[in-house]
Amino acid sequence: METYIGVDLGGTNVRVAKVNEAGVILQTIKGPSYGSEGPEKVMPNIIEMIKKLDDYQNCAGIGIGVPGPVDTNRGIMCLSSNLPGFTGYPIVNELEEAFHIPIYLDNDANVAGLAEALVGAGKGMNVVYYVTISTGIGGALIANGRVVSGKNGYAGEIGNIVIDRARQKVNHLNAGAVECEASGTAIVRKAQERMPYATINHAGDVFELAAKNDPNAVALVDEITTDLAYLFSIISHICDPFAFVIGGGVMKSKAYFLPQVISKYQNLVHEGMRHTLFLEAQLDEPGVIGAAMLPLSMRG
Amino acid sequence: METYIGVDLGGTNVRVAKVNEAGVILQTIKGPSYGSEGPEKVMPNIIEMIKKLDDYQNCAGIGIGVPGPVDTNRGIMCLSSNLPGFTGYPIVNELEEAFHIPIYLDNDANVAGLAEALVGAGKGMNVVYYVTISTGIGGALIANGRVVSGKNGYAGEIGNIVIDRARQKVNHLNAGAVECEASGTAIVRKAQERMPYATINHAGDVFELAAKNDPNAVALVDEITTDLAYLFSIISHICDPFAFVIGGGVMKSKAYFLPQVISKYQNLVHEGMRHTLFLEAQLDEPGVIGAAMLPLSMRG
Repeated sequence: METYIGVDLGGTNVRVAKVNEAGVILQTIKGPSYGSEGPEKVMPNIIEMIKKLDDYQNCAGIGIGVPGPVDTNRGIMCLSSNLPGFTGYPIVNELEEAFHIPIYLDNDANVAGLAEALVGAGKGMNVVYYVTISTGIGGALIANGRVVSGKNGYAGEIGNIVIDRARQKVNHLNAGAVECEASGTAIVRKAQERMPYATINHAGDVFELAAKNDPNAVALVDEITTDLAYLFSIISHICDPFAFVIGGGVMKSKAYFLPQVISKYQNLVHEGMRHTLFLEAQLDEPGVIGAAMLPLSMRG
Repeated sequence: METYIGVDLGGTNVRVAKVNEAGVILQTIKGPSYGSEGPEKVMPNIIEMIKKLDDYQNCAGIGIGVPGPVDTNRGIMCLSSNLPGFTGYPIVNELEEAFHIPIYLDNDANVAGLAEALVGAGKGMNVVYYVTISTGIGGALIANGRVVSGKNGYAGEIGNIVIDRARQKVNHLNAGAVECEASGTAIVRKAQERMPYATINHAGDVFELAAKNDPNAVALVDEITTDLAYLFSIISHICDPFAFVIGGGVMKSKAYFLPQVISKYQNLVHEGMRHTLFLEAQLDEPGVIGAAMLPLSMRG
Protein backbone atom coordinates (compact mmCIF):
# COMPACT_ATOMS: atom_id res chain seq x y z
CA MET A 1 0.00 0.00 0.00
CA GLU A 2 1.36 3.42 -0.97
CA THR A 3 1.92 6.09 1.67
CA TYR A 4 1.60 9.84 1.25
CA ILE A 5 2.68 12.88 3.21
CA GLY A 6 0.10 15.42 4.31
CA VAL A 7 0.96 18.94 5.49
CA ASP A 8 -1.68 21.00 7.30
CA LEU A 9 -0.23 24.50 7.31
CA GLY A 10 -1.88 27.15 9.45
CA GLY A 11 -0.91 30.62 10.54
CA THR A 12 0.22 29.36 13.96
CA ASN A 13 0.80 25.62 13.75
CA VAL A 14 1.77 23.06 11.18
CA ARG A 15 1.11 19.34 11.20
CA VAL A 16 2.96 16.89 8.99
CA ALA A 17 1.85 13.28 8.75
CA LYS A 18 2.48 10.08 6.89
CA VAL A 19 -0.84 8.61 5.79
CA ASN A 20 -1.66 5.41 3.94
CA GLU A 21 -4.12 4.98 1.04
CA ALA A 22 -6.89 4.08 3.45
CA GLY A 23 -6.49 7.43 5.20
CA VAL A 24 -4.86 6.00 8.31
CA ILE A 25 -2.31 8.30 9.93
CA LEU A 26 0.91 6.32 10.48
CA GLN A 27 3.05 9.08 12.00
CA THR A 28 2.52 12.75 12.90
CA ILE A 29 4.88 15.60 13.66
CA LYS A 30 3.47 18.87 15.00
CA GLY A 31 5.04 22.21 15.66
CA PRO A 32 4.83 25.98 15.24
CA SER A 33 4.48 27.13 11.63
CA TYR A 34 6.30 30.44 12.15
CA GLY A 35 3.54 31.82 9.91
CA SER A 36 4.23 35.44 10.74
CA GLU A 37 7.88 35.15 9.70
CA GLY A 38 7.26 34.60 5.99
CA PRO A 39 8.06 31.80 3.54
CA GLU A 40 11.84 32.01 4.13
CA LYS A 41 11.24 30.66 7.64
CA VAL A 42 8.07 28.61 7.04
CA MET A 43 9.24 26.56 4.06
CA PRO A 44 12.60 25.26 5.42
CA ASN A 45 10.77 24.36 8.63
CA ILE A 46 8.22 22.27 6.71
CA ILE A 47 10.96 20.57 4.70
CA GLU A 48 12.83 19.72 7.88
CA MET A 49 9.67 18.30 9.49
CA ILE A 50 8.94 16.13 6.45
CA LYS A 51 12.49 14.76 6.59
CA LYS A 52 11.87 13.66 10.17
CA LEU A 53 9.16 11.22 9.00
CA ASP A 54 10.40 7.62 8.92
CA ASP A 55 11.13 6.47 5.40
CA TYR A 56 9.87 9.74 3.89
CA GLN A 57 11.89 9.02 0.74
CA ASN A 58 9.51 6.21 -0.19
CA CYS A 59 6.28 8.19 0.05
CA ALA A 60 4.45 8.54 -3.27
CA GLY A 61 3.52 12.22 -3.00
CA ILE A 62 3.01 15.24 -0.78
CA GLY A 63 -0.13 17.32 -0.35
CA ILE A 64 -0.40 20.64 1.46
CA GLY A 65 -3.51 22.31 2.82
CA VAL A 66 -3.35 26.08 3.33
CA PRO A 67 -5.74 28.73 4.69
CA GLY A 68 -6.89 30.59 1.58
CA PRO A 69 -7.79 30.20 -2.09
CA VAL A 70 -5.30 28.30 -4.24
CA ASP A 71 -4.50 28.23 -7.94
CA THR A 72 -4.02 24.47 -8.00
CA ASN A 73 -2.57 24.44 -11.51
CA ARG A 74 0.24 26.82 -10.60
CA GLY A 75 0.59 25.52 -7.03
CA ILE A 76 0.32 28.93 -5.40
CA MET A 77 -2.00 30.71 -2.99
CA CYS A 78 -4.10 33.39 -4.74
CA LEU A 79 -4.65 35.24 -1.50
CA SER A 80 -2.98 34.68 1.85
CA SER A 81 -4.29 36.60 4.85
CA ASN A 82 -2.98 34.39 7.67
CA LEU A 83 0.41 33.61 6.16
CA PRO A 84 2.14 36.87 5.18
CA GLY A 85 4.27 36.65 2.06
CA PHE A 86 2.57 33.57 0.68
CA THR A 87 0.34 35.21 -1.94
CA GLY A 88 1.82 33.92 -5.20
CA TYR A 89 4.75 32.19 -3.44
CA PRO A 90 5.87 29.05 -5.37
CA ILE A 91 5.13 26.54 -2.59
CA VAL A 92 4.78 23.54 -4.90
CA ASN A 93 7.88 24.36 -6.96
CA GLU A 94 10.02 24.71 -3.86
CA LEU A 95 8.89 21.38 -2.41
CA GLU A 96 9.31 19.65 -5.77
CA GLU A 97 12.93 20.80 -5.86
CA ALA A 98 13.44 19.43 -2.36
CA PHE A 99 11.72 16.06 -2.77
CA HIS A 100 11.31 15.20 -6.50
CA ILE A 101 7.92 13.55 -6.00
CA PRO A 102 4.42 14.79 -6.99
CA ILE A 103 3.33 17.75 -4.86
CA TYR A 104 -0.18 19.23 -4.71
CA LEU A 105 -1.59 22.28 -2.96
CA ASP A 106 -5.19 23.14 -2.09
CA ASN A 107 -7.04 25.09 0.56
CA ASP A 108 -7.90 23.71 3.97
CA ALA A 109 -11.65 23.34 3.41
CA ASN A 110 -11.05 21.54 0.12
CA VAL A 111 -8.61 19.05 1.63
CA ALA A 112 -10.89 18.42 4.60
CA GLY A 113 -13.73 17.77 2.17
CA LEU A 114 -11.53 15.44 0.14
CA ALA A 115 -10.69 13.43 3.25
CA GLU A 116 -14.37 13.10 4.18
CA ALA A 117 -15.29 12.14 0.60
CA LEU A 118 -12.57 9.51 0.19
CA VAL A 119 -12.19 7.95 3.63
CA GLY A 120 -14.79 9.64 5.86
CA ALA A 121 -18.55 10.05 5.91
CA GLY A 122 -18.82 10.30 2.11
CA LYS A 123 -16.69 7.25 1.32
CA GLY A 124 -17.75 5.50 -1.87
CA MET A 125 -19.90 8.38 -3.11
CA ASN A 126 -19.31 9.89 -6.51
CA VAL A 127 -20.28 13.49 -5.69
CA VAL A 128 -19.93 14.91 -2.18
CA TYR A 129 -20.42 18.47 -0.99
CA TYR A 130 -18.62 19.21 2.25
CA VAL A 131 -20.01 22.08 4.32
CA THR A 132 -18.45 23.47 7.45
CA ILE A 133 -20.53 25.65 9.74
CA SER A 134 -18.46 27.27 12.47
CA THR A 135 -17.40 30.89 12.89
CA GLY A 136 -17.77 31.07 9.11
CA ILE A 137 -19.41 28.88 6.49
CA GLY A 138 -17.25 27.17 3.89
CA GLY A 139 -17.33 24.12 1.72
CA ALA A 140 -15.83 21.93 -0.93
CA LEU A 141 -17.04 20.01 -3.96
CA ILE A 142 -15.54 16.56 -4.52
CA ALA A 143 -16.54 14.83 -7.76
CA ASN A 144 -15.18 11.59 -9.18
CA GLY A 145 -12.70 11.36 -6.32
CA ARG A 146 -11.15 14.78 -6.88
CA VAL A 147 -11.57 18.23 -5.42
CA VAL A 148 -13.16 20.67 -7.85
CA SER A 149 -11.08 23.66 -6.86
CA GLY A 150 -12.03 25.95 -9.71
CA LYS A 151 -10.27 28.63 -11.69
CA ASN A 152 -8.81 30.48 -8.72
CA GLY A 153 -9.62 28.14 -5.88
CA TYR A 154 -12.87 29.86 -4.95
CA ALA A 155 -15.01 26.76 -5.38
CA GLY A 156 -16.52 26.11 -1.97
CA GLU A 157 -16.52 29.77 -0.87
CA ILE A 158 -20.21 29.25 -0.21
CA GLY A 159 -20.30 31.62 2.75
CA ASN A 160 -20.74 34.46 0.27
CA ILE A 161 -23.84 32.97 -1.40
CA VAL A 162 -26.88 35.23 -1.04
CA ILE A 163 -29.77 33.27 0.42
CA ASP A 164 -32.00 36.32 0.88
CA ARG A 165 -31.21 39.55 -0.82
CA ALA A 166 -33.51 41.53 1.47
CA ARG A 167 -31.01 41.33 4.37
CA GLN A 168 -28.70 44.11 5.56
CA LYS A 169 -25.02 44.15 4.71
CA VAL A 170 -22.97 43.00 7.72
CA ASN A 171 -19.34 42.92 6.58
CA HIS A 172 -17.31 42.60 3.37
CA LEU A 173 -19.51 39.70 2.20
CA ASN A 174 -22.67 40.17 0.15
CA ALA A 175 -25.79 41.49 1.85
CA GLY A 176 -27.74 38.33 2.65
CA ALA A 177 -24.66 36.09 2.39
CA VAL A 178 -25.36 32.87 4.26
CA GLU A 179 -22.25 33.27 6.43
CA CYS A 180 -23.65 36.57 7.72
CA GLU A 181 -26.99 34.95 8.45
CA ALA A 182 -26.41 31.39 9.66
CA SER A 183 -22.80 30.87 10.77
CA GLY A 184 -21.97 30.40 14.44
CA THR A 185 -20.87 34.03 14.57
CA ALA A 186 -24.11 35.19 12.93
CA ILE A 187 -26.26 33.13 15.29
CA VAL A 188 -24.55 34.67 18.32
CA ARG A 189 -24.77 38.19 16.86
CA LYS A 190 -28.48 37.91 16.12
CA ALA A 191 -29.26 36.32 19.47
CA GLN A 192 -27.41 39.02 21.37
CA GLU A 193 -29.35 41.69 19.44
CA ARG A 194 -32.74 40.09 19.86
CA MET A 195 -32.46 38.47 23.30
CA PRO A 196 -30.76 40.98 25.58
CA TYR A 197 -32.19 39.10 28.58
CA ALA A 198 -30.19 35.95 27.81
CA THR A 199 -26.53 35.02 28.14
CA ILE A 200 -25.35 33.97 24.72
CA ASN A 201 -21.74 32.85 24.43
CA HIS A 202 -22.05 30.51 21.48
CA ALA A 203 -24.59 29.16 19.03
CA GLY A 204 -25.35 26.20 21.27
CA ASP A 205 -26.88 28.55 23.85
CA VAL A 206 -29.46 29.67 21.28
CA PHE A 207 -30.44 26.13 20.36
CA GLU A 208 -30.84 25.21 24.02
CA LEU A 209 -33.07 28.22 24.66
CA ALA A 210 -35.16 27.25 21.64
CA ALA A 211 -35.51 23.74 23.05
CA LYS A 212 -36.86 25.40 26.21
CA ASN A 213 -39.41 27.25 24.03
CA ASP A 214 -37.98 30.74 24.39
CA PRO A 215 -40.05 32.37 21.61
CA ASN A 216 -37.24 34.60 20.29
CA ALA A 217 -34.85 31.66 20.21
CA VAL A 218 -37.47 29.52 18.45
CA ALA A 219 -37.98 32.25 15.85
CA LEU A 220 -34.23 32.62 15.36
CA VAL A 221 -33.71 28.88 14.90
CA ASP A 222 -36.57 28.89 12.41
CA GLU A 223 -34.84 31.69 10.49
CA ILE A 224 -31.42 30.03 10.52
CA THR A 225 -32.69 26.63 9.49
CA THR A 226 -34.62 28.20 6.61
CA ASP A 227 -31.48 30.05 5.50
CA LEU A 228 -29.43 26.86 5.61
CA ALA A 229 -32.14 24.94 3.74
CA TYR A 230 -31.94 27.51 0.92
CA LEU A 231 -28.15 27.07 0.83
CA PHE A 232 -28.33 23.28 0.61
CA SER A 233 -31.09 23.45 -2.00
CA ILE A 234 -29.02 25.80 -4.15
CA ILE A 235 -25.99 23.50 -3.98
CA SER A 236 -28.10 20.45 -4.90
CA HIS A 237 -29.52 22.08 -8.01
CA ILE A 238 -25.99 22.86 -9.15
CA CYS A 239 -24.23 19.53 -8.51
CA ASP A 240 -26.77 17.08 -6.93
CA PRO A 241 -24.41 15.51 -4.37
CA PHE A 242 -25.02 12.02 -3.03
CA ALA A 243 -24.42 13.51 0.40
CA PHE A 244 -23.72 16.71 2.22
CA VAL A 245 -20.99 16.01 4.75
CA ILE A 246 -21.28 18.66 7.42
CA GLY A 247 -18.59 19.65 9.88
CA GLY A 248 -17.78 22.60 12.08
CA GLY A 249 -18.57 23.54 15.66
CA VAL A 250 -22.24 24.31 15.10
CA MET A 251 -22.77 20.60 14.35
CA LYS A 252 -22.38 19.95 18.08
CA SER A 253 -25.99 21.15 18.23
CA LYS A 254 -27.10 19.09 15.23
CA ALA A 255 -29.97 17.45 17.07
CA TYR A 256 -31.47 20.91 17.62
CA PHE A 257 -31.38 22.19 14.06
CA LEU A 258 -30.48 19.61 11.40
CA PRO A 259 -33.89 17.86 11.22
CA GLN A 260 -35.54 21.25 10.56
CA VAL A 261 -32.99 22.05 7.85
CA ILE A 262 -33.59 18.72 6.11
CA SER A 263 -37.35 19.05 6.25
CA LYS A 264 -37.25 22.55 4.76
CA TYR A 265 -34.69 21.46 2.17
CA GLN A 266 -37.07 18.81 0.91
CA ASN A 267 -39.63 21.49 0.12
CA LEU A 268 -37.10 23.44 -1.94
CA VAL A 269 -35.94 20.69 -4.31
CA HIS A 270 -37.48 18.52 -7.01
CA GLU A 271 -39.17 15.37 -5.77
CA GLY A 272 -36.39 13.15 -7.10
CA MET A 273 -33.84 15.04 -4.97
CA ARG A 274 -35.48 14.57 -1.58
CA HIS A 275 -33.27 11.69 -0.54
CA THR A 276 -29.97 13.54 -0.51
CA LEU A 277 -28.07 12.42 2.58
CA PHE A 278 -27.07 14.87 5.31
CA LEU A 279 -24.14 13.28 7.15
CA GLU A 280 -21.95 14.48 9.96
CA ALA A 281 -18.23 14.75 9.24
CA GLN A 282 -16.42 11.75 10.76
CA LEU A 283 -12.71 12.40 10.80
CA ASP A 284 -10.74 13.82 13.72
CA GLU A 285 -7.92 15.11 11.55
CA PRO A 286 -9.41 15.82 8.12
CA GLY A 287 -6.86 18.54 7.38
CA VAL A 288 -3.75 16.44 7.39
CA ILE A 289 -5.44 13.31 6.01
CA GLY A 290 -7.03 15.27 3.17
CA ALA A 291 -3.72 16.93 2.33
CA ALA A 292 -2.14 13.49 2.06
CA MET A 293 -5.05 12.35 -0.15
CA LEU A 294 -4.39 15.13 -2.69
CA PRO A 295 -1.62 13.30 -4.62
CA LEU A 296 -3.58 10.04 -4.39
CA SER A 297 -6.67 11.76 -5.84
CA MET A 298 -4.70 13.11 -8.80
CA ARG A 299 -3.38 9.74 -9.97
CA GLY A 300 -4.50 8.17 -13.26
CA MET B 1 -8.24 8.55 -34.02
CA GLU B 2 -11.12 6.78 -32.28
CA THR B 3 -14.71 7.41 -33.37
CA TYR B 4 -17.80 7.38 -31.19
CA ILE B 5 -21.53 7.22 -31.79
CA GLY B 6 -23.79 9.94 -30.40
CA VAL B 7 -27.55 9.59 -30.09
CA ASP B 8 -29.66 12.69 -29.45
CA LEU B 9 -33.04 11.29 -28.48
CA GLY B 10 -36.01 13.65 -28.24
CA GLY B 11 -39.73 13.17 -27.94
CA THR B 12 -40.24 13.78 -31.67
CA ASN B 13 -36.93 13.30 -33.45
CA VAL B 14 -33.74 11.35 -33.00
CA ARG B 15 -30.34 12.06 -34.44
CA VAL B 16 -27.57 9.49 -34.61
CA ALA B 17 -24.05 10.48 -35.60
CA LYS B 18 -20.53 9.17 -35.87
CA VAL B 19 -18.17 11.68 -34.29
CA ASN B 20 -14.39 11.67 -33.96
CA GLU B 21 -12.35 12.53 -30.85
CA ALA B 22 -12.06 16.13 -31.97
CA GLY B 23 -15.84 16.47 -31.98
CA VAL B 24 -16.17 16.50 -35.76
CA ILE B 25 -19.36 14.88 -37.07
CA LEU B 26 -18.43 12.34 -39.76
CA GLN B 27 -21.90 11.04 -40.59
CA THR B 28 -25.44 11.81 -39.38
CA ILE B 29 -28.72 9.96 -39.66
CA LYS B 30 -31.93 11.71 -38.61
CA GLY B 31 -35.47 10.52 -38.29
CA PRO B 32 -38.60 10.40 -36.15
CA SER B 33 -38.06 9.01 -32.65
CA TYR B 34 -41.57 7.52 -32.31
CA GLY B 35 -41.33 8.88 -28.77
CA SER B 36 -45.04 8.55 -28.06
CA GLU B 37 -45.01 4.84 -28.91
CA GLY B 38 -42.85 3.69 -25.98
CA PRO B 39 -39.48 1.95 -25.70
CA GLU B 40 -40.60 -1.12 -27.65
CA LYS B 41 -40.76 1.06 -30.76
CA VAL B 42 -38.11 3.67 -29.89
CA MET B 43 -35.24 1.32 -28.99
CA PRO B 44 -35.27 -0.98 -32.06
CA ASN B 45 -35.49 2.13 -34.21
CA ILE B 46 -32.36 3.60 -32.59
CA ILE B 47 -30.50 0.31 -32.94
CA GLU B 48 -31.39 0.12 -36.61
CA MET B 49 -30.24 3.70 -37.19
CA ILE B 50 -26.92 3.04 -35.48
CA LYS B 51 -26.38 0.01 -37.71
CA LYS B 52 -26.80 2.22 -40.77
CA LEU B 53 -23.67 4.18 -39.82
CA ASP B 54 -20.66 3.17 -41.93
CA ASP B 55 -18.30 0.93 -40.00
CA TYR B 56 -20.33 1.26 -36.79
CA GLN B 57 -18.72 -1.95 -35.50
CA ASN B 58 -15.41 -0.16 -35.07
CA CYS B 59 -16.69 2.73 -32.99
CA ALA B 60 -15.28 2.83 -29.45
CA GLY B 61 -18.49 3.63 -27.59
CA ILE B 62 -22.01 5.02 -27.73
CA GLY B 63 -23.47 7.94 -25.78
CA ILE B 64 -27.13 8.90 -25.57
CA GLY B 65 -28.63 12.22 -24.57
CA VAL B 66 -32.23 12.19 -23.33
CA PRO B 67 -34.71 14.85 -22.18
CA GLY B 68 -34.85 14.36 -18.39
CA PRO B 69 -32.79 13.50 -15.31
CA VAL B 70 -30.66 10.37 -15.55
CA ASP B 71 -29.19 7.96 -13.04
CA THR B 72 -25.90 7.64 -14.89
CA ASN B 73 -24.70 4.73 -12.77
CA ARG B 74 -27.69 2.58 -13.61
CA GLY B 75 -28.10 3.95 -17.12
CA ILE B 76 -31.77 4.82 -16.73
CA MET B 77 -33.94 7.94 -16.82
CA CYS B 78 -35.20 8.90 -13.35
CA LEU B 79 -38.11 10.82 -14.81
CA SER B 80 -39.32 10.89 -18.39
CA SER B 81 -42.04 13.37 -19.31
CA ASN B 82 -41.51 13.58 -23.09
CA LEU B 83 -40.80 9.90 -23.69
CA PRO B 84 -43.59 7.81 -22.17
CA GLY B 85 -42.49 4.47 -20.72
CA PHE B 86 -38.85 5.45 -20.31
CA THR B 87 -38.82 6.18 -16.58
CA GLY B 88 -36.58 3.40 -15.25
CA TYR B 89 -36.30 1.67 -18.64
CA PRO B 90 -32.89 -0.09 -19.04
CA ILE B 91 -31.70 1.93 -22.05
CA VAL B 92 -28.00 1.28 -21.46
CA ASN B 93 -28.43 -2.45 -20.79
CA GLU B 94 -30.43 -2.93 -23.96
CA LEU B 95 -27.87 -1.16 -26.12
CA GLU B 96 -24.99 -3.02 -24.45
CA GLU B 97 -26.64 -6.30 -25.41
CA ALA B 98 -26.98 -5.10 -28.99
CA PHE B 99 -23.48 -3.65 -29.46
CA HIS B 100 -21.09 -4.97 -26.78
CA ILE B 101 -19.21 -1.67 -26.48
CA PRO B 102 -19.26 0.94 -23.66
CA ILE B 103 -22.60 2.79 -23.52
CA TYR B 104 -23.33 5.92 -21.47
CA LEU B 105 -26.51 7.86 -20.87
CA ASP B 106 -27.00 11.43 -19.64
CA ASN B 107 -29.50 14.23 -20.04
CA ASP B 108 -29.54 16.60 -22.98
CA ALA B 109 -28.29 19.69 -21.14
CA ASN B 110 -25.41 17.70 -19.63
CA VAL B 111 -24.29 16.31 -22.97
CA ALA B 112 -24.56 19.72 -24.62
CA GLY B 113 -22.43 21.16 -21.81
CA LEU B 114 -19.91 18.35 -22.22
CA ALA B 115 -19.60 19.10 -25.92
CA GLU B 116 -19.02 22.80 -25.26
CA ALA B 117 -16.49 22.00 -22.51
CA LEU B 118 -14.47 19.50 -24.54
CA VAL B 119 -14.62 20.79 -28.11
CA GLY B 120 -16.58 24.06 -27.99
CA ALA B 121 -16.27 27.41 -26.24
CA GLY B 122 -14.85 25.89 -23.05
CA LYS B 123 -12.19 23.74 -24.73
CA GLY B 124 -9.11 23.28 -22.57
CA MET B 125 -10.75 24.53 -19.39
CA ASN B 126 -10.78 22.38 -16.28
CA VAL B 127 -14.14 23.50 -14.87
CA VAL B 128 -16.94 24.76 -17.11
CA TYR B 129 -20.51 25.61 -16.19
CA TYR B 130 -22.86 25.47 -19.15
CA VAL B 131 -26.02 27.55 -18.86
CA THR B 132 -28.87 27.58 -21.33
CA ILE B 133 -31.40 30.41 -21.24
CA SER B 134 -34.36 29.77 -23.52
CA THR B 135 -37.95 28.89 -22.63
CA GLY B 136 -36.45 27.47 -19.42
CA ILE B 137 -33.09 27.80 -17.69
CA GLY B 138 -30.88 24.76 -17.37
CA GLY B 139 -27.23 23.94 -17.03
CA ALA B 140 -24.44 21.45 -16.60
CA LEU B 141 -21.24 21.20 -14.61
CA ILE B 142 -18.22 19.73 -16.38
CA ALA B 143 -15.15 19.18 -14.21
CA ASN B 144 -11.92 17.43 -15.16
CA GLY B 145 -13.38 16.55 -18.55
CA ARG B 146 -16.46 14.81 -17.19
CA VAL B 147 -20.07 15.73 -16.58
CA VAL B 148 -20.93 15.95 -12.89
CA SER B 149 -24.37 14.45 -13.19
CA GLY B 150 -25.04 13.90 -9.49
CA LYS B 151 -26.90 11.35 -7.47
CA ASN B 152 -30.06 11.34 -9.55
CA GLY B 153 -29.04 13.45 -12.51
CA TYR B 154 -30.35 16.71 -11.06
CA ALA B 155 -27.02 18.51 -11.25
CA GLY B 156 -27.59 21.45 -13.56
CA GLU B 157 -31.31 21.82 -12.76
CA ILE B 158 -30.44 25.42 -11.97
CA GLY B 159 -33.79 26.79 -13.15
CA ASN B 160 -35.18 25.94 -9.70
CA ILE B 161 -32.58 27.97 -7.78
CA VAL B 162 -34.18 30.74 -5.74
CA ILE B 163 -32.53 34.05 -6.57
CA ASP B 164 -35.03 36.15 -4.58
CA ARG B 165 -37.32 34.54 -2.08
CA ALA B 166 -39.62 37.60 -2.01
CA ARG B 167 -41.13 36.70 -5.43
CA GLN B 168 -44.51 35.11 -6.06
CA LYS B 169 -44.86 31.43 -6.93
CA VAL B 170 -45.48 31.05 -10.67
CA ASN B 171 -45.60 27.32 -11.35
CA HIS B 172 -44.35 24.04 -9.85
CA LEU B 173 -40.88 25.54 -9.34
CA ASN B 174 -39.84 27.38 -6.17
CA ALA B 175 -41.16 30.91 -5.59
CA GLY B 176 -38.33 33.11 -6.83
CA ALA B 177 -36.80 30.34 -8.97
CA VAL B 178 -34.60 31.94 -11.61
CA GLU B 179 -36.44 30.15 -14.43
CA CYS B 180 -39.66 31.87 -13.33
CA GLU B 181 -37.90 35.23 -13.24
CA ALA B 182 -35.36 35.40 -16.06
CA SER B 183 -36.02 32.72 -18.70
CA GLY B 184 -37.32 33.69 -22.13
CA THR B 185 -40.80 32.66 -21.02
CA ALA B 186 -40.55 34.73 -17.85
CA ILE B 187 -39.31 37.80 -19.73
CA VAL B 188 -42.27 37.61 -22.11
CA ARG B 189 -44.74 37.02 -19.26
CA LYS B 190 -43.52 39.98 -17.25
CA ALA B 191 -43.35 42.28 -20.26
CA GLN B 192 -46.90 41.43 -21.31
CA GLU B 193 -48.09 42.16 -17.75
CA ARG B 194 -46.22 45.42 -17.37
CA MET B 195 -46.29 46.79 -20.91
CA PRO B 196 -49.79 46.25 -22.28
CA TYR B 197 -49.12 48.97 -24.88
CA ALA B 198 -46.37 46.94 -26.56
CA THR B 199 -46.36 43.89 -28.81
CA ILE B 200 -44.19 41.30 -27.10
CA ASN B 201 -43.73 38.01 -28.91
CA HIS B 202 -40.38 37.00 -27.56
CA ALA B 203 -37.68 38.17 -25.18
CA GLY B 204 -35.85 39.97 -27.97
CA ASP B 205 -38.73 42.45 -28.26
CA VAL B 206 -38.18 43.52 -24.65
CA PHE B 207 -34.46 44.07 -25.14
CA GLU B 208 -35.12 46.15 -28.25
CA LEU B 209 -37.66 48.31 -26.42
CA ALA B 210 -35.13 48.82 -23.63
CA ALA B 211 -32.56 49.88 -26.20
CA LYS B 212 -35.10 52.50 -27.34
CA ASN B 213 -35.36 53.69 -23.71
CA ASP B 214 -38.88 52.47 -22.98
CA PRO B 215 -38.77 52.98 -19.19
CA ASN B 216 -40.69 49.79 -18.33
CA ALA B 217 -38.50 47.74 -20.61
CA VAL B 218 -35.36 49.33 -19.12
CA ALA B 219 -36.60 48.49 -15.62
CA LEU B 220 -37.42 44.93 -16.65
CA VAL B 221 -34.01 44.37 -18.22
CA ASP B 222 -32.43 45.77 -15.06
CA GLU B 223 -34.42 43.25 -13.01
CA ILE B 224 -33.61 40.28 -15.24
CA THR B 225 -29.91 41.06 -15.47
CA THR B 226 -29.74 41.39 -11.68
CA ASP B 227 -31.48 38.03 -11.28
CA LEU B 228 -29.08 36.36 -13.70
CA ALA B 229 -26.10 37.98 -11.97
CA TYR B 230 -27.21 36.41 -8.67
CA LEU B 231 -27.49 33.03 -10.41
CA PHE B 232 -23.99 33.20 -11.91
CA SER B 233 -22.54 34.46 -8.62
CA ILE B 234 -24.10 31.54 -6.73
CA ILE B 235 -22.68 29.02 -9.20
CA SER B 236 -19.19 30.57 -9.00
CA HIS B 237 -19.08 30.35 -5.22
CA ILE B 238 -19.94 26.66 -5.45
CA CYS B 239 -17.57 25.52 -8.23
CA ASP B 240 -15.61 28.57 -9.52
CA PRO B 241 -15.73 27.72 -13.24
CA PHE B 242 -13.07 28.98 -15.64
CA ALA B 243 -15.96 29.98 -17.87
CA PHE B 244 -19.69 30.07 -18.12
CA VAL B 245 -20.63 28.84 -21.58
CA ILE B 246 -24.06 30.24 -22.31
CA GLY B 247 -26.46 28.95 -24.92
CA GLY B 248 -30.18 29.14 -25.63
CA GLY B 249 -32.38 31.44 -27.67
CA VAL B 250 -32.13 34.43 -25.32
CA MET B 251 -28.42 34.68 -26.22
CA LYS B 252 -29.51 36.07 -29.60
CA SER B 253 -29.96 39.31 -27.63
CA LYS B 254 -26.67 38.99 -25.76
CA ALA B 255 -25.47 42.44 -26.75
CA TYR B 256 -28.48 43.91 -24.95
CA PHE B 257 -28.13 42.13 -21.62
CA LEU B 258 -24.88 40.22 -21.11
CA PRO B 259 -22.64 43.22 -20.34
CA GLN B 260 -25.07 44.26 -17.57
CA VAL B 261 -25.10 40.73 -16.16
CA ILE B 262 -21.30 40.56 -16.08
CA SER B 263 -20.95 43.96 -14.45
CA LYS B 264 -23.46 43.07 -11.72
CA TYR B 265 -21.87 39.63 -11.27
CA GLN B 266 -18.53 41.26 -10.50
CA ASN B 267 -20.12 43.08 -7.57
CA LEU B 268 -21.45 39.81 -6.13
CA VAL B 269 -18.23 37.80 -6.03
CA HIS B 270 -14.87 37.99 -4.27
CA GLU B 271 -12.30 40.18 -5.99
CA GLY B 272 -10.28 37.16 -7.14
CA MET B 273 -13.33 35.82 -9.00
CA ARG B 274 -14.04 38.85 -11.17
CA HIS B 275 -12.32 37.48 -14.24
CA THR B 276 -14.58 34.49 -14.81
CA LEU B 277 -15.24 34.26 -18.55
CA PHE B 278 -18.74 34.55 -19.97
CA LEU B 279 -18.65 32.84 -23.38
CA GLU B 280 -21.29 32.14 -25.95
CA ALA B 281 -21.90 28.50 -26.83
CA GLN B 282 -20.20 27.71 -30.16
CA LEU B 283 -21.49 24.40 -31.45
CA ASP B 284 -24.35 23.94 -33.92
CA GLU B 285 -25.08 20.39 -32.82
CA PRO B 286 -24.00 20.11 -29.19
CA GLY B 287 -26.57 17.41 -28.44
CA VAL B 288 -25.26 14.72 -30.73
CA ILE B 289 -21.60 15.72 -30.36
CA GLY B 290 -21.87 15.75 -26.57
CA ALA B 291 -23.59 12.37 -26.55
CA ALA B 292 -20.70 10.95 -28.56
CA MET B 293 -18.23 12.56 -26.14
CA LEU B 294 -19.75 10.71 -23.15
CA PRO B 295 -17.83 7.44 -23.66
CA LEU B 296 -14.67 9.38 -24.49
CA SER B 297 -15.02 11.41 -21.27
CA MET B 298 -15.35 8.27 -19.17
CA ARG B 299 -12.11 6.65 -20.36
CA GLY B 300 -9.14 6.20 -18.05
